[in-house]
Amino acid sequence: MWPPLQNDCFLRACLRQPTEYTPLWLMRQAGRYLPEYKATRVKAGNSFMGLATNVEYATEVTLQPLDRFPLDAAILFSDILTVPDAMGLGLSFGAGEGPRFARPVRDEAAVAQLAVPDMDKLRYVFDAVTSIRRALITTDGEGRRVGRVPLIGFSGSPWTLACYMVEGAGSDDYRLVKTLLYSRPDLMHRILAVNAAAVTAYLNTQIEAGAQAVMIFDSWGGVLADGAFQRFSLDYTRRVVQGLQREKDGQRVPCIVFTKGGGPWLDEIASVGADVVGLDWTVNLGRARQLVGDRVALQGNLDPNVLFAPDEAVAREAVAVLDSFGRPQRPDGGWDGHVFNLGHGISQHTPPERVATLVEAVHSHSRALRSPV
Amino acid sequence: MWPPLQNDCFLRACLRQPTEYTPLWLMRQAGRYLPEYKATRVKAGNSFMGLATNVEYATEVTLQPLDRFPLDAAILFSDILTVPDAMGLGLSFGAGEGPRFARPVRDEAAVAQLAVPDMDKLRYVFDAVTSIRRALITTDGEGRRVGRVPLIGFSGSPWTLACYMVEGAGSDDYRLVKTLLYSRPDLMHRILAVNAAAVTAYLNTQIEAGAQAVMIFDSWGGVLADGAFQRFSLDYTRRVVQGLQREKDGQRVPCIVFTKGGGPWLDEIASVGADVVGLDWTVNLGRARQLVGDRVALQGNLDPNVLFAPDEAVAREAVAVLDSFGRPQRPDGGWDGHVFNLGHGISQHTPPERVATLVEAVHSHSRALRSPV
Repeated sequence: MWPPLQNDCFLRACLRQPTEYTPLWLMRQAGRYLPEYKATRVKAGNSFMGLATNVEYATEVTLQPLDRFPLDAAILFSDILTVPDAMGLGLSFGAGEGPRFARPVRDEAAVAQLAVPDMDKLRYVFDAVTSIRRALITTDGEGRRVGRVPLIGFSGSPWTLACYMVEGAGSDDYRLVKTLLYSRPDLMHRILAVNAAAVTAYLNTQIEAGAQAVMIFDSWGGVLADGAFQRFSLDYTRRVVQGLQREKDGQRVPCIVFTKGGGPWLDEIASVGADVVGLDWTVNLGRARQLVGDRVALQGNLDPNVLFAPDEAVAREAVAVLDSFGRPQRPDGGWDGHVFNLGHGISQHTPPERVATLVEAVHSHSRALRSPV
Repeated sequence: MWPPLQNDCFLRACLRQPTEYTPLWLMRQAGRYLPEYKATRVKAGNSFMGLATNVEYATEVTLQPLDRFPLDAAILFSDILTVPDAMGLGLSFGAGEGPRFARPVRDEAAVAQLAVPDMDKLRYVFDAVTSIRRALITTDGEGRRVGRVPLIGFSGSPWTLACYMVEGAGSDDYRLVKTLLYSRPDLMHRILAVNAAAVTAYLNTQIEAGAQAVMIFDSWGGVLADGAFQRFSLDYTRRVVQGLQREKDGQRVPCIVFTKGGGPWLDEIASVGADVVGLDWTVNLGRARQLVGDRVALQGNLDPNVLFAPDEAVAREAVAVLDSFGRPQRPDGGWDGHVFNLGHGISQHTPPERVATLVEAVHSHSRALRSPV
């Protein structure tokens, strides 16, 4: 049904197969730093969820960065909070504010009512996945139908969703969710079990709809204490990974796990069964590769603030990240995998020209890294 | 001049000497979670700097937690931003807001004007140190004058001060300071060199005034990328540590370095020459001890949010931290050092009774840990 990929470099890097260069995509690559994104958002009533719930607009903004920059993957335009919204918690985005839930989950009664949502309530997400995958089809130089780049689906991790569900909004200190965790671990485990089942179904339905890789954003795993992280975040991420459909149409569907601030637990994160581990910029890529590079590919890890510096500095820092990982070919002839990315979402204040500089620097230096020495 | 200490358990743990139990103190132990602190603050015009700049009030609030709980150290009541304030940047605390500088340092001209401030402008801090040290003197059971517990002085690290100096206030993303760092590393290094000299003088003058240990808070070191952390934070922290007076009145003055989010760089942080390394709650204490426990004592690392849970949970989590470090006696007969603390400042919302539970749990379980097996 789906045509073959024109550029499958990203998928090969995820699976630790040979690549001619290091593929890159950027977290939040479809976003407010692009004027064309802002224009589409205005059409959608200047509302984030207006964009995310409209298949046409979600498709449009997903493709915008690919039309500007030769990125190696597309990522579904959506939000991690679609799942708790479908659970009935009442998501809204106030003007100039972050997300907010009308009905946060803070007591035994609210926890008892939680259930895996009917995936039909998330139909708009799956429809967007299929629509984007279709929109990525083009014709190559020889007139064949091809997919331009792979499409990544995603979800928040069970713990990260729980943070928002209990806090009801973003938080500085995660006081409410941690109070629940330490006071009533039984309730916390019940929320996480529901979330894990929901996230598994959500990602598998994205894969059915056309996602060629999936990423689990454990954005708030890094706020947990050692010990609590393993029990309340990683164990449930593992449950999701183990429940994922890993092959579709004869192709492996790589799974990426990214814990912001997860550096101290890299070894354990690399053992949950994902193909790729995302790293933030605090992690030394070379050391991470030594530790887990024979088990997983690594994704990351430029500080997005580098993109506020002049072009020379952007190129220099991109080269430093690539050099820290090193030549992906191992002395034994095998390959380790590196997918270049930022260590966090791109800032809305980023000048788009700097992204062009970054893409060029990553592609050209990584080709040079692979040339015979 | 100063009488001997009644309780020097904290100093011995810092220096990896035998102790009968694990000493503890809490970052921000003199603070808004205590009703008596709020009462003093009202007397000081409900102003943080009103408290910090008044020797009498600063002394009063420093001693308040010691009168409630058998803590093993006092820490000077002050703020890390006193140093840039003395540089002339114009510190203010808006109502309900964080700190703000009227004249942030963002361009070449502002950087050129920076200089190590005259320590006389910080006289109120040194006077507070001496006043607190005096107020800590009591009479023991046999009528001898003794110091109740050691007094810790402190400063922000050169990098952490620079964050505030460039941003002009707290920040979510450190965009301005990182833009400067990546665009004009020469200016950043100049700011940091001035800060390092200022912090060194500031801490040495605190030691002269009576501080028996000093702590460097690298609160924002953890936001830097690997590589940038070493060059822009750790190198300047090292410069401070190496410039410190380490002995006073025949006593070693221990130096504690705490980088929030510094877990990935523990080995390097342990090599700057400090006696103690502070750890946040993401770090596994047992593993940290294996890695660096033969070089430094460790301080930390309970998640302050544990103090919102019931007493049983507080005690259980305190025991887990102590057990993670393990018996401080090594099989070879030597001792490793552990100072119990939170991994961050105590929250203003903490019920004070939970602190009593914590202190009791740490003291009693750590005595039990030392008993012959």
